[in-house]
Amino acid sequence: MAPAGAKSGQARKGLLERLDAGEIVIGDGGFVFALEKRGYVKAGPWTPEAAVEHPEAVRQLHREFLRAGANVMQTFTFYASDDKLENRGNYVAEKISGQKVNEAACDIAREVANEGDALVAGGVSQTPSYLSCKSESEVKAIFRKQLDVFVKKNVDFLIAEYFEHVEEAVWAVEVLKEAGKAVAATLCIGPEGDLNGVCPGECAVRLARAGASVVGVNCHFDPMTCVATVKLMKEGLAAANVKAHLMTQPLAYHTPDCGKQGFIDLPEFPFALEPRIVSRWDIHKYARAAYDLGVRYIGGCCGFEPYHTRAIAEELAPERGFLPTGSEKHGSWGSGLDMHTKPWVRARARRDYWEKLHPASGRPYCPSMAKPDAWGVTKGDAELMQQKEATTENQLRELFSKQSL
Amino acid sequence: MAPAGAKSGQARKGLLERLDAGEIVIGDGGFVFALEKRGYVKAGPWTPEAAVEHPEAVRQLHREFLRAGANVMQTFTFYASDDKLENRGNYVAEKISGQKVNEAACDIAREVANEGDALVAGGVSQTPSYLSCKSESEVKAIFRKQLDVFVKKNVDFLIAEYFEHVEEAVWAVEVLKEAGKAVAATLCIGPEGDLNGVCPGECAVRLARAGASVVGVNCHFDPMTCVATVKLMKEGLAAANVKAHLMTQPLAYHTPDCGKQGFIDLPEFPFALEPRIVSRWDIHKYARAAYDLGVRYIGGCCGFEPYHTRAIAEELAPERGFLPTGSEKHGSWGSGLDMHTKPWVRARARRDYWEKLHPASGRPYCPSMAKPDAWGVTKGDAELMQQKEATTENQLRELFSKQSL
Amino acid sequence: MAPAGAKSGQARKGLLERLDAGEIVIGDGGFVFALEKRGYVKAGPWTPEAAVEHPEAVRQLHREFLRAGANVMQTFTFYASDDKLENRGNYVAEKISGQKVNEAACDIAREVANEGDALVAGGVSQTPSYLSCKSESEVKAIFRKQLDVFVKKNVDFLIAEYFEHVEEAVWAVEVLKEAGKAVAATLCIGPEGDLNGVCPGECAVRLARAGASVVGVNCHFDPMTCVATVKLMKEGLAAANVKAHLMTQPLAYHTPDCGKQGFIDLPEFPFALEPRIVSRWDIHKYARAAYDLGVRYIGGCCGFEPYHTRAIAEELAPERGFLPTGSEKHGSWGSGLDMHTKPWVRARARRDYWEKLHPASGRPYCPSMAKPDAWGVTKGDAELMQQKEATTENQLRELFSKQSL
Amino acid sequence: MAPAGAKSGQARKGLLERLDAGEIVIGDGGFVFALEKRGYVKAGPWTPEAAVEHPEAVRQLHREFLRAGANVMQTFTFYASDDKLENRGNYVAEKISGQKVNEAACDIAREVANEGDALVAGGVSQTPSYLSCKSESEVKAIFRKQLDVFVKKNVDFLIAEYFEHVEEAVWAVEVLKEAGKAVAATLCIGPEGDLNGVCPGECAVRLARAGASVVGVNCHFDPMTCVATVKLMKEGLAAANVKAHLMTQPLAYHTPDCGKQGFIDLPEFPFALEPRIVSRWDIHKYARAAYDLGVRYIGGCCGFEPYHTRAIAEELAPERGFLPTGSEKHGSWGSGLDMHTKPWVRARARRDYWEKLHPASGRPYCPSMAKPDAWGVTKGDAELMQQKEATTENQLRELFSKQSL
Repeated sequence: MAPAGAKSGQARKGLLERLDAGEIVIGDGGFVFALEKRGYVKAGPWTPEAAVEHPEAVRQLHREFLRAGANVMQTFTFYASDDKLENRGNYVAEKISGQKVNEAACDIAREVANEGDALVAGGVSQTPSYLSCKSESEVKAIFRKQLDVFVKKNVDFLIAEYFEHVEEAVWAVEVLKEAGKAVAATLCIGPEGDLNGVCPGECAVRLARAGASVVGVNCHFDPMTCVATVKLMKEGLAAANVKAHLMTQPLAYHTPDCGKQGFIDLPEFPFALEPRIVSRWDIHKYARAAYDLGVRYIGGCCGFEPYHTRAIAEELAPERGFLPTGSEKHGSWGSGLDMHTKPWVRARARRDYWEKLHPASGRPYCPSMAKPDAWGVTKGDAELMQQKEATTENQLRELFSKQSL
Repeated sequence: MAPAGAKSGQARKGLLERLDAGEIVIGDGGFVFALEKRGYVKAGPWTPEAAVEHPEAVRQLHREFLRAGANVMQTFTFYASDDKLENRGNYVAEKISGQKVNEAACDIAREVANEGDALVAGGVSQTPSYLSCKSESEVKAIFRKQLDVFVKKNVDFLIAEYFEHVEEAVWAVEVLKEAGKAVAATLCIGPEGDLNGVCPGECAVRLARAGASVVGVNCHFDPMTCVATVKLMKEGLAAANVKAHLMTQPLAYHTPDCGKQGFIDLPEFPFALEPRIVSRWDIHKYARAAYDLGVRYIGGCCGFEPYHTRAIAEELAPERGFLPTGSEKHGSWGSGLDMHTKPWVRARARRDYWEKLHPASGRPYCPSMAKPDAWGVTKGDAELMQQKEATTENQLRELFSKQSL
Repeated sequence: MAPAGAKSGQARKGLLERLDAGEIVIGDGGFVFALEKRGYVKAGPWTPEAAVEHPEAVRQLHREFLRAGANVMQTFTFYASDDKLENRGNYVAEKISGQKVNEAACDIAREVANEGDALVAGGVSQTPSYLSCKSESEVKAIFRKQLDVFVKKNVDFLIAEYFEHVEEAVWAVEVLKEAGKAVAATLCIGPEGDLNGVCPGECAVRLARAGASVVGVNCHFDPMTCVATVKLMKEGLAAANVKAHLMTQPLAYHTPDCGKQGFIDLPEFPFALEPRIVSRWDIHKYARAAYDLGVRYIGGCCGFEPYHTRAIAEELAPERGFLPTGSEKHGSWGSGLDMHTKPWVRARARRDYWEKLHPASGRPYCPSMAKPDAWGVTKGDAELMQQKEATTENQLRELFSKQSL
Repeated sequence: MAPAGAKSGQARKGLLERLDAGEIVIGDGGFVFALEKRGYVKAGPWTPEAAVEHPEAVRQLHREFLRAGANVMQTFTFYASDDKLENRGNYVAEKISGQKVNEAACDIAREVANEGDALVAGGVSQTPSYLSCKSESEVKAIFRKQLDVFVKKNVDFLIAEYFEHVEEAVWAVEVLKEAGKAVAATLCIGPEGDLNGVCPGECAVRLARAGASVVGVNCHFDPMTCVATVKLMKEGLAAANVKAHLMTQPLAYHTPDCGKQGFIDLPEFPFALEPRIVSRWDIHKYARAAYDLGVRYIGGCCGFEPYHTRAIAEELAPERGFLPTGSEKHGSWGSGLDMHTKPWVRARARRDYWEKLHPASGRPYCPSMAKPDAWGVTKGDAELMQQKEATTENQLRELFSKQSL
């Protein structure tokens, strides 16, 4: 099978055109975690202003995902809503402006999308305003400001993603639908449902009825857990006789020990998640399971590096009929190791080896599972109120004292 | 402390000038593993031709290490010797030529080094010729071809690195010395010594006597094991009354279970090492231990991403007097988390939390240690003979049958 | 608190008299696993004929449980039904007779019970006949043969235990009730319910309605899982407005990875369970949790050694008002270590130390969880048909080939 | 092979007669840990007065080891020296007397030995007097008091065991030799040697030169570590051209993480060692390795239960020509499972299954290795001074504060 991908000459098919035709759409990976490791994004606020400050770094990551087989370039606009950019001491709203950040992100995504067969998706996500109990119209106004940029920059479709409460996600979908473009919507929930206790099946139904053509989950849980959650969504849709395409963009971290709120609660979040990073072989299993369930928009979220995305494209190469460009530098299932110097490494140039391997952590003093923090709080809880001012020393000390290691 | 780093206006001090003055020199990180994940390098031959094929990707990684605080831009010339580029079916020697690959790597390294306070180091590493029992003059001729390029491109100093046998490393140092530039030399050995059984202390003495001004170890073992090995080198040098600066460029993988040959033998090499990746906090401990031992050239090798390099620079910021540019997007010891949405994550904005944490792997079905493959073979063993032809199906089948999982 | 226990002079209160008065009744521990380790019982058939062949060994174990604080001496009649004693090549029915085995067990239990404040309980458990689809009257006839011995030997009360199907347990309770003695009934199920899918709450209701005064669970799952299952039973009883005392006799093995069928499915069963053995401190937590839930008959099953039973008695000493005799040789929470030679061991003479300790396995090449065998079969499945003849070589070979490690 | 063992009619061959003839002598297992779990021994002082207070419990354990295949009944006189029985608040010296304790232990051992083909060995071990820097003559006087009893009771041979310092062990051997009986001597050391830094080879030579006919190690380390230590002893003896038989009596706990002082330093000692308990299959490997090294006195120490001892006898049945009596209730390598009810358990009735199994701990929140306490102190250190008075509250508080968990 010859590597392929770029079809820049021909007119691109739209998202729904592809999904309705049964094509696989491969999403890109996680920007904020990848760029944090590369030195351009700060964990916590997850600083989307990198698109303005270091466009070459954002562009390079887009290119890597494209090369890995992604059909979607998602604008790097996570947490780029105006209320987020002025939260807890953030300077961006004042010094740069949310509009510029969102515009720069669109421009970069479009530039790289045009280098291959990819669509640009403008994305919005949950807002501090909702968590701080602002009204529906206030929250919707926040989404609308980002949407204005996406319309001006003429993105190909829209994504409402990373919502812990389906109520807010529905509001987002309702706003995005105003633009007349296709809308995909994903919650960051697990099999237990959203933080208000709405089960995945019901969530999916509400999103689809609000106008989302594609529904699913992203972030917060590991690949197989996300597939399990989308299975519940699929069943809920079927029971309600509501139609929608399915989508998964999971973490690239193993999270068997997570509670309802996902990996944010794990003690390792966000700076010691290394031992949980999934291998490319875990992604092969995920891609196959998602496909077998009927999911056709298959991507990744936090932790996904380009080689994870490539693993989706390699697993589904028989169905798609081609390998991604990035496979030039990779043999499926480790076959490229036949050129290694050491004979016992050449002996690993086979699927059987990698599929069965249980990788060791090299950490004999560490446990295999952790007890998540369970300050289990949702919208409206005093501890979740956001503020414009930086967190004070006193506020931090109070938090430190609440948390024993 | 204000982030700093770029001093492009002023004349740069040379390597020995810095080390003799007691300054800390921070090395860059690992290119082949990082670029493999980004889709530009093939595991096995570790394809250095990326410098010709995708210069923007190599350049971006250089920039990230520079931004992270690195004072050295090592040319991306690992495994770029002519005999390697035609080994086991490799097409590069024929289609591109080793000279072009080495020149492109030098140009990129120089371009980025000039953007900050960094030196360019031209690097050679162990050769298939040595493993296949070629003569000293044949092996030296191989090194000399790379050196010609480094001289033409006027790199600032030279590194002989990743040698399993001190004998070959001494040959490399002898060749590199011909250029009249400072030479650093590192072996990829652990406390047990080189593959011919020469102990670390003796190895260090031989390298220094051959002309290396800086000696140490790189690759193959985890950070604290490398520090332990260099401690043995330091003791050997002292006992022989030989002077040399010390250097460590370890893996960013935990390898407590490795044998003498290091991580190549681990069953997880190279495609399932994820659970072994060290955290930034592990690097803080490494940087401090290396510094306390008297090591002043402190860098990283395979597995090191820019955020690992930044952790060296942050740990040693009090000694260096400044933070790297990349710390704009990072608070030391997690302090940047004070802007996080969730209160229990804000509670992690402190050194005490990350220093004590034992991160879980999220892999309850995996062991914590692995049994390395032990086909323990060294130079001259039939199994280690290299060949120009691609490995055949039959050769592979024979290897597969020797290896039970 | 002075150790106490023996009240051999006074008339013993009956089981219900104690439970109705709110007293704690401590059950004894596991006979078959303890005697297997001591060399008197064969794993697989769990050979109850030890009561005839080696009465001194059975008597000694009874004494140890009595000394540990047990108020019940359960006759060593597990798997001592006639159909079991002739199953798969078993010689006992023919050479000794089930009646003799049951009589010997009663005599030993009575002898030791009279040495302290303990009651004798005659026990029946699930039958090969049920698994092989014999009729209700055939199965009941099996129970009745054991009951005849219990009545003749005048045990104090009766226990129907270790049933995977509530239907068979109900039949057992109906038979045992014929004797006019108090009956306790426990299933070996987890929170998912019995093998026919009846939930724990419903199981409890059916057992109580059949005539059991005490209901609960024994065997198959670890202590905290058993407490969780009994919690469901308690809720089911309350919802149905049915009254019964509660009882738990869990494993002394950690089983977080068990499926519906419990520890039989674990790859380690029965000869490599060592790393799962619970510590005395785990038992303290179990005893407190069971007590807090309202359970008043608190004992143990397979894996429970006398020191586990003693830990129940020590945890509940404040409520009971006395320590067991065996505590003469034990200080609660490790306090007896104040006499140790080494100072760092004397430093462990405190509750805080043991309560917080996460014990290491010393097995870095082993995982922390296992994948249970899932040949998930229940009554009537061809594979579960029992037979009088020994398993043949051919039958074994077929089984071996079905099971990969 | 028919189970066998009892040869009560014929005259018993002595220890050296057997070893000189190349026969395997199987030692018994650990009394103090087994009896602690049964409720008769207190951890810390390890109360040998159980022989007086509960002879039936000690006798039963002897019988179980005999039945398991042991050829030696070691008197239950560990820590039964007079200075130990009055150490740190111990009442035994005053209320019972050391002489009575030692006599009772001899009587029980002889009674059971006569029931089979076993010898009685009188044992002495390290003394508080030595640790508190008493003189050679004072320490020897302590040993002599126990020896007087052994002579009076006419034990078959003598063992000096559990010495951390070879100096004290040599003194013990010198005293024991006075009786004219064969003497075996074992240190509780690992490959690093004794606490004064004497290496295992040198220790073995000194013990043999002092008069020990059998030398080796017992306790403190796991089976394979003990075999490794005895290998060093064997090499030392060969180098010095000194002859002695070899002996191993290891722990039945996995201790890969132990330092020089062995399992006493592990955080789990002595009340949370459960996850480290070795399986019978680990013992098979140990017995074979010890035999292959040339060890012919093969037994066990703390943690060894009768089924562990039986595993030695089963592994070496081909060499010995018979199985132990206890194998009546055990099929080698799990073959007895062919009578189990569940088909997937019958499928485990084979060597291949158990040999390859890596047993899970069922403890995903626990690490696999622990950091031992390292208060590394030896004879003469103030912290190791023993005292007659009970440890005071103040002394304990000081110790507690020194130890963080």
